[in-house]
Amino acid sequence: MGKENLTLLTDFYELTMMQGYFKNNTNERVIFDVFYRTNPSDSGYAICAGLEQVIEYIKNLHFGEEDIAYLRSLKIFDEDFLSYLTDFHFTGDIYAIPEGTVIFPMEPLVKVVAPIIEAQLIETAVLNIINHQSLIATKASRVCYAAQGDGVMEFGLRRAQGPDAGTLGARAAVIGGCIGTSNVLCAKYFNVPALGTHAHSWIMSFEDELTAFRIYAELYPSNATLLVDTYDTLRSGVPNAIKVFRELKEAGKMPKTYGIRLDSGDLAYLSKRARKMLDEAGFTDASIVASSDLDEYLIDSLKTQGAAIDSWGVGTNLITSKDCPAFGGVYKLAAIEKNGKFIPKIKLSENPWKITNPGDKTIYRVYEKESGKVKADLIALTVEKYSEDETLKLFDPIATWKKTNLKGGSYTLRELLVPIFVKGECVYTSPSVMDIRAYCQKELDTLWDETRRLVNPHNVYVDLSIDLYQMKHQLLNSINNGNGHI
Amino acid sequence: MGKENLTLLTDFYELTMMQGYFKNNTNERVIFDVFYRTNPSDSGYAICAGLEQVIEYIKNLHFGEEDIAYLRSLKIFDEDFLSYLTDFHFTGDIYAIPEGTVIFPMEPLVKVVAPIIEAQLIETAVLNIINHQSLIATKASRVCYAAQGDGVMEFGLRRAQGPDAGTLGARAAVIGGCIGTSNVLCAKYFNVPALGTHAHSWIMSFEDELTAFRIYAELYPSNATLLVDTYDTLRSGVPNAIKVFRELKEAGKMPKTYGIRLDSGDLAYLSKRARKMLDEAGFTDASIVASSDLDEYLIDSLKTQGAAIDSWGVGTNLITSKDCPAFGGVYKLAAIEKNGKFIPKIKLSENPWKITNPGDKTIYRVYEKESGKVKADLIALTVEKYSEDETLKLFDPIATWKKTNLKGGSYTLRELLVPIFVKGECVYTSPSVMDIRAYCQKELDTLWDETRRLVNPHNVYVDLSIDLYQMKHQLLNSINNGNGHI
Repeated sequence: MGKENLTLLTDFYELTMMQGYFKNNTNERVIFDVFYRTNPSDSGYAICAGLEQVIEYIKNLHFGEEDIAYLRSLKIFDEDFLSYLTDFHFTGDIYAIPEGTVIFPMEPLVKVVAPIIEAQLIETAVLNIINHQSLIATKASRVCYAAQGDGVMEFGLRRAQGPDAGTLGARAAVIGGCIGTSNVLCAKYFNVPALGTHAHSWIMSFEDELTAFRIYAELYPSNATLLVDTYDTLRSGVPNAIKVFRELKEAGKMPKTYGIRLDSGDLAYLSKRARKMLDEAGFTDASIVASSDLDEYLIDSLKTQGAAIDSWGVGTNLITSKDCPAFGGVYKLAAIEKNGKFIPKIKLSENPWKITNPGDKTIYRVYEKESGKVKADLIALTVEKYSEDETLKLFDPIATWKKTNLKGGSYTLRELLVPIFVKGECVYTSPSVMDIRAYCQKELDTLWDETRRLVNPHNVYVDLSIDLYQMKHQLLNSINNGNGHI
Repeated sequence: MGKENLTLLTDFYELTMMQGYFKNNTNERVIFDVFYRTNPSDSGYAICAGLEQVIEYIKNLHFGEEDIAYLRSLKIFDEDFLSYLTDFHFTGDIYAIPEGTVIFPMEPLVKVVAPIIEAQLIETAVLNIINHQSLIATKASRVCYAAQGDGVMEFGLRRAQGPDAGTLGARAAVIGGCIGTSNVLCAKYFNVPALGTHAHSWIMSFEDELTAFRIYAELYPSNATLLVDTYDTLRSGVPNAIKVFRELKEAGKMPKTYGIRLDSGDLAYLSKRARKMLDEAGFTDASIVASSDLDEYLIDSLKTQGAAIDSWGVGTNLITSKDCPAFGGVYKLAAIEKNGKFIPKIKLSENPWKITNPGDKTIYRVYEKESGKVKADLIALTVEKYSEDETLKLFDPIATWKKTNLKGGSYTLRELLVPIFVKGECVYTSPSVMDIRAYCQKELDTLWDETRRLVNPHNVYVDLSIDLYQMKHQLLNSINNGNGHI
């Protein structure tokens, strides 16, 4: 986490290609774009995350002696190339969309402008980091949306796909809206709240549940949230919890925060019954925390059913993004510099929407001025200039007859990509995770409810500028020789 | 990976419970079992993996100065407890099933016998590591089963859930049967084959495909596997590859390994057409490698369709176990020592099969002597003794009328749990990953085909000994007071 050397965290073919370019004296500057094609979990948007770890990775890039010795042992790399690697460091430029920003398909999230040997090496790790954290941040934003403002706690470490998935995943979950995590390592590294109280084993290690509750509440007078489902939630757990709350009240030791946690059974039924029991005993401010295989759909359903739950602990389904455990970010060549000029490149596919966007691009987010909501995104060439005073012509890049003209003054533009590295030097300081979280909440507010909803959301248009569209189609026509569909 | 201090990789409630036990002077020895309830991906078995990383984690357990300072800053831990943590190390015993072993639901994969404060701390990390790697090893074994002996390469790093998920996941994938990985860091750490050739960007960085192929084949004379789908597989990629192979042949420079890689399109159709083109050109020994969103079902279907594919690169669906991205391993209290004797403990549930198995247990694998195949597993108390000469009575622990008697001499027994730590000292040396892989292949051979098949597999019985069954039911009856179903 920050200090480890991840230089060999790359696909083997990156290294064979690097040696190929090296031996062929091919090291032109190129542009690679990181983008994705489909929002995860049928979402109407995604949240980008992971940039801080990409920055650390790039800063720490170097081949140590052990790495070189290992590569030499494979008997596929020549000494001149290994000697080049010994002095390797990243000298290029990187632009990226800041973490916590709402993003849409086909937009360059990260743009790498660097000699091809360097740009090729970093492909795999950059994708790994951005794909993972963007996936979990997106999922978290959906879970928090379903919770309608209740606190959502990230509880998934034990089911995460390894230590990093637990720790960096929890970081991303907080960016996406969780109020904190059970993962202490994450809480320490990223200065986010560490959350949790006790497990069934605490209860089971005492002679009886009441004793376990009593001792816990005595030890932690500031937060007595008692887990009530070890033996029988309504006949044992809740009555014992109420007994302990009464004792604390009588002793004048009422905790600031207190309540119960339900971790199994029918959460709608149990929470309503438990709420009634707590209220009748006078503990109307006792909170009810729920956990147990929750996701955005189940929370949404529990809300609809009127479940009396104030706070949510979400584990497996969030930390693995269970219904969609991979974010399909790719890293595609967009241009190669020849004689000081970037020549656009395109990757074909039989599916029109899978064809890449060529050239040196940037993204403008178009906001409706009146509401501050996102109207569309516009991918344009960096050489193009836009003015908010002029009419902005937008059109669907596949169904080109679908057009919108935005009058000057009715919209605002914001360029999403910001410089992160310039000539190998980092020029960007990552905000704290809690600051990224706050920024992300504002970002989500720029979306229409129709885009945020969990099912069948309204998709935001991501349009191409006229110049980019024309460049793309000229390239397509020049490649396709007319002997059939490509 | 091995050197990092993961001591704080734990749920916050482990620490609050630890302080609770500490302040309450509760530190009896306890037994915790790691087990899981359902095979992932509807499999008939699972493969356990991750033990080497659990061992490293336990060996490295210590709270550094920074960790203590962080915990102090939370203002919830007292100085006497923090002082205890400063000197903390693991003093208990750990038993585990060796990595690469075939496992079934409800069996203790790891048994921790330790003072409760220590046993509680390690819960989260042990689960995290075992859950992750067992998940991926299981998935890999299924993908390799579908490939019917063809080589399967792990290619998923860019879509893995963070760096560890990519690297430890690739380790697990090799254990489960992959012949190697594209992940260079994994290959270096674990001494497994690093695999791969080139990407679309290699092709696109040259003026044309033919030049890109020629230069690649010249640079890597020992393995010329050419990616043929950048522009048009059958009209450009395969003909250009054949042209290059002809040139190499004419120059007397035919590579030992050569062929083409298909990474998009209809793999059944394209592979058959490409095979015909290669064969007609005389390159009958050219291999055809396929990648592109593969999983066990798609490979199985391609095999059924007669696809001419010799080798498979599997990414996203393997490294994330996409259809089932979490292995549901849990860590449950089974016994607490009082006056030198372990008192069994049980965790109730409304679902009979979710009720835990109490006491100090071990597992015997029962093999049919004649075939060497697995007949059943038997979870028994460690105090019980079994002899292969006597009749073994097995019965279904839920549907108890289902019984089998195995005659003495017709079966063999193998105890699965082996000692890993004794009184805090590691007594086990992990085999190399490639040795674990070879062991796992033998393990898979002990399963009947009916258990290995991908869909609707035959489930292997995991039975309880009579003594364990009776102990469990006595405990259940003593807890349930008869006021209704628990």
